[in-house]
Amino acid sequence: MIDLYYAPTPNGWKISIMLEECGLPYRVIPVELGRGDQHQPDYLKLNPNGRMPVIVDQAPADGGPPLPVFESGAILIYLAEKTGRFLPAEPRARLDVLQWLMWQMGGLGPMLGQNGHFLLYAPEQIPYAIDRYGREARRLYRVLDGHLEGRDHIAGDYSIADMACFPWIMTHKAQGLTLDDFPNLKRWYALLRARPQLQAGLALGKEERRPMDEQARKIMFGVDQPAYADAQAQQQQ
Amino acid sequence: MIDLYYAPTPNGWKISIMLEECGLPYRVIPVELGRGDQHQPDYLKLNPNGRMPVIVDQAPADGGPPLPVFESGAILIYLAEKTGRFLPAEPRARLDVLQWLMWQMGGLGPMLGQNGHFLLYAPEQIPYAIDRYGREARRLYRVLDGHLEGRDHIAGDYSIADMACFPWIMTHKAQGLTLDDFPNLKRWYALLRARPQLQAGLALGKEERRPMDEQARKIMFGVDQPAYADAQAQQQQ
Repeated sequence: MIDLYYAPTPNGWKISIMLEECGLPYRVIPVELGRGDQHQPDYLKLNPNGRMPVIVDQAPADGGPPLPVFESGAILIYLAEKTGRFLPAEPRARLDVLQWLMWQMGGLGPMLGQNGHFLLYAPEQIPYAIDRYGREARRLYRVLDGHLEGRDHIAGDYSIADMACFPWIMTHKAQGLTLDDFPNLKRWYALLRARPQLQAGLALGKEERRPMDEQARKIMFGVDQPAYADAQAQQQQ
Repeated sequence: MIDLYYAPTPNGWKISIMLEECGLPYRVIPVELGRGDQHQPDYLKLNPNGRMPVIVDQAPADGGPPLPVFESGAILIYLAEKTGRFLPAEPRARLDVLQWLMWQMGGLGPMLGQNGHFLLYAPEQIPYAIDRYGREARRLYRVLDGHLEGRDHIAGDYSIADMACFPWIMTHKAQGLTLDDFPNLKRWYALLRARPQLQAGLALGKEERRPMDEQARKIMFGVDQPAYADAQAQQQQ
């Protein structure tokens, strides 16, 4: 059994999709970001960074004590290696998946997080930042679109690289982008979107998505917080 | 022989440090970011994302054709697995390194990159952004400082997690931070700084660091560029 500390955001979806794709039994522990669950001492023992998602594998392969894992990229690798799925063993194919996973972790995720913040959450309109991140978001979409020319998936067969990128492409409207400008991305998106497992991952906790109120905004972006928490829907890792 | 496409920036240093630590023979191909080398068609064949660093392993373990790898996090894993060093084989120890490597790739690197951009490179002072990223930079330093309490290294023995984080801690002054506020981080920093291999990695191409002129700024942040390139010293991946 895997415990999944989860909220329905792009970084949460990466893991809910992967768990559904692998068919691993899991139990959801909701993380209410707007209430600051991720700043609580017990949570920080699992992830000192105070972000979501986290998993705890109650039955790790070595038969040892429950194993917590934080950072969505590390969780994806862990689950892929546990199940032998969605990350090939062949070294070149595996490396290809890892480099695109890193591209998502270091570029697509954080930069779209900033774009979303300045478009949707910042209390003032800041043209320089909106322009900066809007251009970077568009550049990143263009990179992936170009790469998908002649390919069905990002790196060989369907893999954790696709699962990592999907939620950040799914949220294109909120990012001020349209897939009509990125035909390969649009084709890839439709192909993945048709997968029942991926749909099940996305549906997880859907009812818990709610507009951010002032209190939640303070907890997540607030200067009052000991640990400065970042944008919910766009940035939790 | 490893070809290293390199500029002396934090993400470049991760790899120059690792190559020196492993004692692998390598050849440097300088990437002049301010001239836009990273946007050239031949470079984009190696890394469609148009960022630095990239390696090409001219003698991969499988005896196959030269193998290019992009994204500093993926390069570190590749070199660690090639040499069997700085990434333990034992699953729990390995996972610990991977999750902190992901923390650097998804958090420390990109967010300090933004902090550096708004402090040093943006043509206007934007208080909201300076505050936002300054607080996040401080939070990330605090997370690592807390984690290093009672530890000499980030994850078990000295590993690629340390090498990935080091350049982003080394640049603390440019980030508006002082290590005096982070005693564990300061101790860890001094311990690593004393390593001759790490020093050799940092010294690579030092003479090529130069102030950014207007033309370089345009190429790296410019609206004119087909591929929008980001902050040199802080953000190249």
